[in-house]
Amino acid sequence: MADNGPVLALVGATGAVGTVMIDIINGRESVPWGEIRLIASARSAGKKITVRGEDLTVIALSPEAFDGVDVAMFDVPDEVSAEWAPIAAERGAVAVDNSGAFRMDPEVPLVVPEVNAEAVHNRPRGIISNPNCTTLSMMAGLGALHREYQLTELVVASYQAVSGAGQSGVDRLYAEIAAVAGKAVGEKAGDVRAALEAAGLVQSESPFPAPMAFNVVPWAGSLKEDGWSSEELKVRNESRKILGIPDLKVSATCVRVPVVTTHSMAVHATFAREVTVEQARKLLGAQPSIVLVDDPANGEYPTPAEVVGGDPTYIGRIRQALDFPNTLELFVCGDNLRKGAALNTYEIAEVIVTQA
Amino acid sequence: MADNGPVLALVGATGAVGTVMIDIINGRESVPWGEIRLIASARSAGKKITVRGEDLTVIALSPEAFDGVDVAMFDVPDEVSAEWAPIAAERGAVAVDNSGAFRMDPEVPLVVPEVNAEAVHNRPRGIISNPNCTTLSMMAGLGALHREYQLTELVVASYQAVSGAGQSGVDRLYAEIAAVAGKAVGEKAGDVRAALEAAGLVQSESPFPAPMAFNVVPWAGSLKEDGWSSEELKVRNESRKILGIPDLKVSATCVRVPVVTTHSMAVHATFAREVTVEQARKLLGAQPSIVLVDDPANGEYPTPAEVVGGDPTYIGRIRQALDFPNTLELFVCGDNLRKGAALNTYEIAEVIVTQA
Repeated sequence: MADNGPVLALVGATGAVGTVMIDIINGRESVPWGEIRLIASARSAGKKITVRGEDLTVIALSPEAFDGVDVAMFDVPDEVSAEWAPIAAERGAVAVDNSGAFRMDPEVPLVVPEVNAEAVHNRPRGIISNPNCTTLSMMAGLGALHREYQLTELVVASYQAVSGAGQSGVDRLYAEIAAVAGKAVGEKAGDVRAALEAAGLVQSESPFPAPMAFNVVPWAGSLKEDGWSSEELKVRNESRKILGIPDLKVSATCVRVPVVTTHSMAVHATFAREVTVEQARKLLGAQPSIVLVDDPANGEYPTPAEVVGGDPTYIGRIRQALDFPNTLELFVCGDNLRKGAALNTYEIAEVIVTQA
Repeated sequence: MADNGPVLALVGATGAVGTVMIDIINGRESVPWGEIRLIASARSAGKKITVRGEDLTVIALSPEAFDGVDVAMFDVPDEVSAEWAPIAAERGAVAVDNSGAFRMDPEVPLVVPEVNAEAVHNRPRGIISNPNCTTLSMMAGLGALHREYQLTELVVASYQAVSGAGQSGVDRLYAEIAAVAGKAVGEKAGDVRAALEAAGLVQSESPFPAPMAFNVVPWAGSLKEDGWSSEELKVRNESRKILGIPDLKVSATCVRVPVVTTHSMAVHATFAREVTVEQARKLLGAQPSIVLVDDPANGEYPTPAEVVGGDPTYIGRIRQALDFPNTLELFVCGDNLRKGAALNTYEIAEVIVTQA
């Protein structure tokens, strides 16, 4: 550790999540980082970015770039992380990886600080993984409930924002909305697709497999065995690992919706012990990273457009299932770029240096 | 019954569902209706509408309007149905009501012809109810599976189109989309709402409690006990009544999405008997009113913008739940104005006269 404080590297500094990460670093004072080092592909090297009032120059990814680094946060595609996180670890940094490359590696902890901060210390490979953004949106709330009531079953349906597919997803939705605006499409099959094509928006060039304007698409990620999507299996496997419940029963259906940023989830959660709505409200309301928005009589429930850009998880629509014992229904919204990606990664970095 | 065929009345002929109904009447030849009588409020009386190539004049709602009518279909608000369906029945018509006024009345059958057509004959009040559109979207598929495998539990999350809130919902979504088009809103809390207000779209004048553009809203209907929405309780109570399973376990979360027409549902359905994906596909694929769209390897799953305007229910994403025995996951899309409202009502009318 450098004399004037730990050194933090950000790999992928110029990407969508990297940009949010710099926002987060600029907004927090809790760790007195000695140096912040911005790393990106050779193509972006030389670019200047202002961090904590200082103009920093982005340097190219190389083994030497990690020399002297205490914590290296990776916001890059899976294959870049797979190659470079071990190199950063070899050079002495703790790699905190936001890709899917290491999440299910038994030697790599998968961490949500509110739920399992202590897991950061058991990192034989020098790598810690940040969960998938969809799973992450639920973890603060479910982790708190699990500690008290012991979670046994989860049935989840997601309403996922297009920014989960990166900047190209955001650009595509904006372009599609511009193409359909003012047109009465959405009332006959294929009219939305035709309007997009008339505007030069070819479906095969979209990051999504179907139109997103005036539509929802029950697909995210790649095809895995038996018709499941990779995103749905991540929700199952990562929830089990983070919560430390290897036999947690999970079924998820992941659906993309025309929202820019902030994932929402309808969660049906069953516990081993009885839990009332009042108990759940009290417990969730006491969590520093959760905001309860749960007063339907006054039109108060979380919606993505009303909570996007914030750090907390927003939870509302808490109901006792009428026919399922020990079961709560919740509607959860979390900014998939902040807590769902950059913020949680940064919080892991903070835990590493403050609880070292 | 008139000599030249049964007389069909349509009450609410000039409304959103009434308009779709006339479309359906024009497209079907199965019943040789002797006369079709269009009825609406006094305000719309005198209007001409072409039905089966004939210009018909809309007449005002009155007790005498039902004289000689065999079947009177009601596509009007609850309070209008509550008053006028019994009057139609007194005048000798069978009233088929698409409102919520009579659905849970034990003396009024709640009918989906594919599931419980025989129930039309047991109508002590002379009234038959058409289910809520959200419930209806799932019934053809779940009814077929229930007959073979005995449904015991349902966990449902909906993705409901704005036209479920009537023409004002459609108008509002189109206006909101026009107001946000070309603007990078949706990345900070409240930006969508501000963009709408800047365009003169005041939230309190919307049929929805929050912005619909770039948003999803976990609310439909009115507030009932313990935080449940009326829409969520309808899914539970109407599913039980239609399927004839009084102790069916149901939990629903109803969410409005920025789709014009066609409701989608993520359905987690548990059965008393084991059912494989292959068995479910074969059974569902054999139903005349169901279209299977289930080949994710080729990007084939139902999405509302790609199936809207059609009569069938579209089902895809059929998966065996990994951790729940005898449980299937399904994604279901159904046009909420057609099968979800006008079509099912019309099909009930057909059953009444063809199976009399």
